Amino acid sequence: MATTPAGADIENLIRLLAKLPGLGPRSARRAALALVKKREQLLGPLADALVQVGEKIKPCRTCGNIDVNDPCQICTSATRDPSVICVVQEVGDLWALERAAAFKGQYHVLGGCLSALDGVRPEDLYISNLISRCESPEIIEIILAMNATVDGQTTAHYITDHLVNSDVKITRLAHGVPVGGELDYLDDGTISAAMASRRPF
Amino acid sequence: MATTPAGADIENLIRLLAKLPGLGPRSARRAALALVKKREQLLGPLADALVQVGEKIKPCRTCGNIDVNDPCQICTSATRDPSVICVVQEVGDLWALERAAAFKGQYHVLGGCLSALDGVRPEDLYISNLISRCESPEIIEIILAMNATVDGQTTAHYITDHLVNSDVKITRLAHGVPVGGELDYLDDGTISAAMASRRPF
Repeated sequence: MATTPAGADIENLIRLLAKLPGLGPRSARRAALALVKKREQLLGPLADALVQVGEKIKPCRTCGNIDVNDPCQICTSATRDPSVICVVQEVGDLWALERAAAFKGQYHVLGGCLSALDGVRPEDLYISNLISRCESPEIIEIILAMNATVDGQTTAHYITDHLVNSDVKITRLAHGVPVGGELDYLDDGTISAAMASRRPF
Repeated sequence: MATTPAGADIENLIRLLAKLPGLGPRSARRAALALVKKREQLLGPLADALVQVGEKIKPCRTCGNIDVNDPCQICTSATRDPSVICVVQEVGDLWALERAAAFKGQYHVLGGCLSALDGVRPEDLYISNLISRCESPEIIEIILAMNATVDGQTTAHYITDHLVNSDVKITRLAHGVPVGGELDYLDDGTISAAMASRRPF
């Protein structure tokens, strides 16, 4: 069924916009109209930006990050610790850690996590390359920074199993009360984890 | 401050995506990553769709609607009543009325509403063209379907004032309880309007 009386081109644009995370059919319609209304300031520049990103951005073959260069800025940085690798599921997680400026080592982006439900197997992720990287004697520590979900933790266990014969130290992010979080709104699992990992005050 | 470590092209794409209604900085980052991840299925087609829409879609000089043709499909339709014009603020409102299939006449899209706060004056809107259209003896009724906001109603009054010497009948959409709405959640203005306009059951 046609959702707009403005023809197939607009319909196609709305259909594609609705595939973006955070946009549904209704907000995709609003976005398409905003684009048409701001043709010079928004539609044209956005089309150009997409072409630029499509042409220039590529995955880093070392760590799976995305950048205009391969290897990426982080892998080639002289100021970052080459002996620690932080393993994350997605590039967005890497960006989040970089925004927090909490880590100055290397990264490894898996490109997702193992999921029986979604049919994601180890060979679908960038895991074998991580195992090879860990064989380098330079690597001292691997920080597993997967999401604290069942699938994220399954992936963490899978990686740990495959590094059992290696000398590398394996750590994971702490579980606990989020900074600014209120106990009353937290789930039982988080409260239990925070209690179990309590620290001297 | 850089929000991502992936370079200026991605930053630019995120900045533009964040200008779309419904997307903020955080969801624009997620959208940009989804685009890079689904390069073939999403990023390429979206860039193409934007170029297509940018080239083909134009405003209808008669009614202000957008379409691949000028005059638009609605203005040229043989099955629609040419004697009634429904005046709306935006193309999205026209689409909403068309989805409801509640109207089979002509439209006139103002391109916004008068707003002292945002500095929108009558000459910024497509009003003078509406006044000229109403001079045609063919036009019998004008339905003012502006938003039920202060600015929308100001615009409706402005248009009414400029059509006072014309023979055209001016109507507006009914105010009342939305279908499926619960009285307890409605504002006082709507309840008063619904009470004042009560109908025999």
